[in-house]
Amino acid sequence: RTEVEDKAYERNMAKYVIGIDFGTLSGRCVLIDVNSGVECAESVLEYPHGVMSLRLPDGTPLPPDYALQHPSDYLDVLRFTIADVLDSAQITARDVVGIGIDFTASTVLPVDEHMCPLCMKDGFREDKHSYVKLWKHHSAQMYADEITELARQRGEEWLDIYGGVVSCEWLLPKLLQIARESPRVYAATHRFLEAADWLSYEMTGVETRSAVFAGYKCLWNAETGYPSNDFMAALDPALDGVVGTKILEEVLAMDKIAGHISENGSLITGLEIGTPVALPMIDAHASMAALNITHDGDFIAVAGTSLGQMVNSTEVIKIPGICGYIKDGVIPGLYTYEAGQAAVGDMLAWFINNCIPEPYFAAAERLGVNLHTLLEEKASRLAPGQSGLVALDWWNGNRSVLVNYELTGLIVGLKLSTRPEEIYRALIESAAYGLRRIVEQYEKYGIKVNDICIAGGIARKNAMMMQIYADVLNKRVRASQNAQTGALGSALYAAVAAGAYRDIAEAAQALSANDFIDYEPSAECVEIYDKLYSEYLALHDYFGEDNGMMVRLGKISKAASVK
Amino acid sequence: RTEVEDKAYERNMAKYVIGIDFGTLSGRCVLIDVNSGVECAESVLEYPHGVMSLRLPDGTPLPPDYALQHPSDYLDVLRFTIADVLDSAQITARDVVGIGIDFTASTVLPVDEHMCPLCMKDGFREDKHSYVKLWKHHSAQMYADEITELARQRGEEWLDIYGGVVSCEWLLPKLLQIARESPRVYAATHRFLEAADWLSYEMTGVETRSAVFAGYKCLWNAETGYPSNDFMAALDPALDGVVGTKILEEVLAMDKIAGHISENGSLITGLEIGTPVALPMIDAHASMAALNITHDGDFIAVAGTSLGQMVNSTEVIKIPGICGYIKDGVIPGLYTYEAGQAAVGDMLAWFINNCIPEPYFAAAERLGVNLHTLLEEKASRLAPGQSGLVALDWWNGNRSVLVNYELTGLIVGLKLSTRPEEIYRALIESAAYGLRRIVEQYEKYGIKVNDICIAGGIARKNAMMMQIYADVLNKRVRASQNAQTGALGSALYAAVAAGAYRDIAEAAQALSANDFIDYEPSAECVEIYDKLYSEYLALHDYFGEDNGMMVRLGKISKAASVK
Repeated sequence: RTEVEDKAYERNMAKYVIGIDFGTLSGRCVLIDVNSGVECAESVLEYPHGVMSLRLPDGTPLPPDYALQHPSDYLDVLRFTIADVLDSAQITARDVVGIGIDFTASTVLPVDEHMCPLCMKDGFREDKHSYVKLWKHHSAQMYADEITELARQRGEEWLDIYGGVVSCEWLLPKLLQIARESPRVYAATHRFLEAADWLSYEMTGVETRSAVFAGYKCLWNAETGYPSNDFMAALDPALDGVVGTKILEEVLAMDKIAGHISENGSLITGLEIGTPVALPMIDAHASMAALNITHDGDFIAVAGTSLGQMVNSTEVIKIPGICGYIKDGVIPGLYTYEAGQAAVGDMLAWFINNCIPEPYFAAAERLGVNLHTLLEEKASRLAPGQSGLVALDWWNGNRSVLVNYELTGLIVGLKLSTRPEEIYRALIESAAYGLRRIVEQYEKYGIKVNDICIAGGIARKNAMMMQIYADVLNKRVRASQNAQTGALGSALYAAVAAGAYRDIAEAAQALSANDFIDYEPSAECVEIYDKLYSEYLALHDYFGEDNGMMVRLGKISKAASVK
Repeated sequence: RTEVEDKAYERNMAKYVIGIDFGTLSGRCVLIDVNSGVECAESVLEYPHGVMSLRLPDGTPLPPDYALQHPSDYLDVLRFTIADVLDSAQITARDVVGIGIDFTASTVLPVDEHMCPLCMKDGFREDKHSYVKLWKHHSAQMYADEITELARQRGEEWLDIYGGVVSCEWLLPKLLQIARESPRVYAATHRFLEAADWLSYEMTGVETRSAVFAGYKCLWNAETGYPSNDFMAALDPALDGVVGTKILEEVLAMDKIAGHISENGSLITGLEIGTPVALPMIDAHASMAALNITHDGDFIAVAGTSLGQMVNSTEVIKIPGICGYIKDGVIPGLYTYEAGQAAVGDMLAWFINNCIPEPYFAAAERLGVNLHTLLEEKASRLAPGQSGLVALDWWNGNRSVLVNYELTGLIVGLKLSTRPEEIYRALIESAAYGLRRIVEQYEKYGIKVNDICIAGGIARKNAMMMQIYADVLNKRVRASQNAQTGALGSALYAAVAAGAYRDIAEAAQALSANDFIDYEPSAECVEIYDKLYSEYLALHDYFGEDNGMMVRLGKISKAASVK
């Protein structure tokens, strides 16, 4: 056979899966060869509505700590990016044998009995509570506090699985917020569900509830299910009977599939009717499969706007301040613990947007580099400890291990000689200290932690930051060079849904991305960072536990903003 | 007589005095009509060498916390600005009946037996210790600590007059630094003296020691003189006998004059030989006369790069953390207490230079305003407490009441939504909290404080800041609109030296500047600022007293910078 015939033959034989990663700002789609794992095409669509934190589409202003999305943006991603990757790779929908998606969480919305989002309906568009509440919608903190408090009073056993604290990022506080603040929207809510599950329905016509979302974000576990109705009713009479009505009771384990592309799903995605659709994953968890983080002690941090962190263990241990764990949730036979930091990329972006003086801006332009590159270059010339600065990485609250979104960022050590690159480095160091605090919590409670695997754009782009992670954590850091780990992970679930592999572990073994750059800790830096970390810890405990100052300042701020 | 003849007659009769204010960055000269107090001309010269904190004139790099000046700059100010005001006002030197100067303090230099600054001599130019150590030269902190510690151990009575702590900004720690770090410069030092007194010598040919400098900055008082030689010798054998040799022992009270313009002084200043020269004043104290802050309880803050603060009292009280007091030092019959903040304008300038994003810069340019004006406009739209931020105003250490220059700045409450104008306002508020802490120290120990008089550029330029001072302090703030209070004050001393007035109180009564804008506290804001101030106090005590973190970070930073 000629080479041309060979190629044609290969193309005819090749089958593909699609994975789509629904992030905070955009949807990212990859087309993966189901046999080789090779990425054949990718496509990104920024959400047209972005994150709505100041106003609704009609201009209605939003209160502080709001972060909403518009569900039509997710449909746009399906429509545009799938067609785009097929087009780029010159593939027809016939060669696509499966699709999987992953999503931020808990990103939730109310829909009517036709599964139509309330925010798309006349009469509800102007009500902020009809929109998607994004994971980082933090204005339900008081309801989260109330749920935690009631669970403590009643000695609810599930509370310890979640580190003893219910996060305002999860589903139940967001639902309680609607019940309390917009009874009208609450009454019209047929289901309150993850955007990921809603998107599954849009593709398959079948309503399902994916176990990872229910487990990590809605207090569900395989043994005892959701919190009891007694608890729900005690929380608020409006929540009496909520499980089985507004919250779908049946939860599908991760070895199941969501369904197959329906007629409507085919119109949206362009895929053939009957194409298998995997159960949706949480975004950070999808990266675990993509990078083959499938063994006891394997630790991954997915650093984006925030940082999602998981570690696998054979042990069942209840750890204060760790978001939760579920068995078989990600890897069959292992418990996967989850924790995180509420701002990493967001914190650096805040700094770049708000604190970079004009001469730096001009220098970056002259050199033809972006500001992050310029600052990394300047900051990498500093020795650990040289700036005298230490920061608390709480620009968006603390997800782990304090689980308090009313905590705020802090910088200490500012002097007249302090330069922007010193602050930039201090923020990066604070992110590393925050991750070390999480790792130490695991280790203190007996969870083994191997190397630190880091995925996300920062892992590819900021070598200084990776070295700082290694030096602060005193562990080898393996920085994934794969640009689309979330979408790749979703594609791997699609490959399992398509029947190409027995389970996700086998798919990961065959298809995961293996391009890592390793960073080893330097003994000299480790010693200095040990000292600086002890100062970070002192700040962490003083402001996070001993002293309510940040919460009090938040209350003063809210009262002043209302006027 | 015709009007023209009248004018000519007046001009013939009119006599003038010159006041020159030697600030941190420039010398400012005013020509004042000695009968009316009217300012007839002013002139400013930026110091050609500025503040040397990174390197010597020959490029030799300087260690951290250095702030040096070149004494030739002061002579340039005399040469240029006096000629300039005479020229502007079309006056001849014959009509100038006196000159006075005021100076930053303690700004000190070593000279040889001909009163020639060592830094102007071959063989010493390359030694950093031969230059003028500016008030904000903070690298003698360890020597200041050593002096405080020894004084405590020995129970030295003078220590309580200075609030129990010796500041590294004063003369003795700076001299000890030279003795320890450059024995060669120390050995060649005939006198170590205030730049103000050296300049008096340059003008008069007579060496004098002005009581305010000796009193506030060199542990001297009229009753017991300098610390005993026992103490000096115990501090370091090199200091055995230092008073009477390297430090001129005789101190002149403020009712004396420094002398008269000498032949050499006439060559430098262009004034006639024999013109009376007032004893030099500390810059902030000169403003007291200029604004007639001459009564019991009168309080003034002179806000520039740092903030110098004085209050008059009939009481003699030893107050922890207050820099000191001397009797008759400023106003005959009153004790004038001094305290201060080590950075106010400097802190805001740091922010403007390091933290203003390009779009703000572009907006300011488009609007044709400077960045301070733009930020003031934006920040004034914020309500007290709205940002949720509180800062510690210690970018340049703490002068009062903690007297620790190893303390550093802090910001708490940072969020992803934090805007530059919010930080700008928080810094201004922190300056106001810092001043309130000083006022409360006075009041706690029984010193009466009347209205708050504020002088300096900020008092004229930043109405928002003045209102914040009023609201935070819950006192009327009287913002002086006079642009040259330091130089005017020096001119008033010159008027007394010229014999035109009996004493400085009489001169102030006749000639002081009366253009104030008054700011009254708003009850609503006072209530919120009371809450925020209690958070500031918690930070102040935790970081300033309970916890050595800032000092530890400074040590780590110094160690890292050396490598």
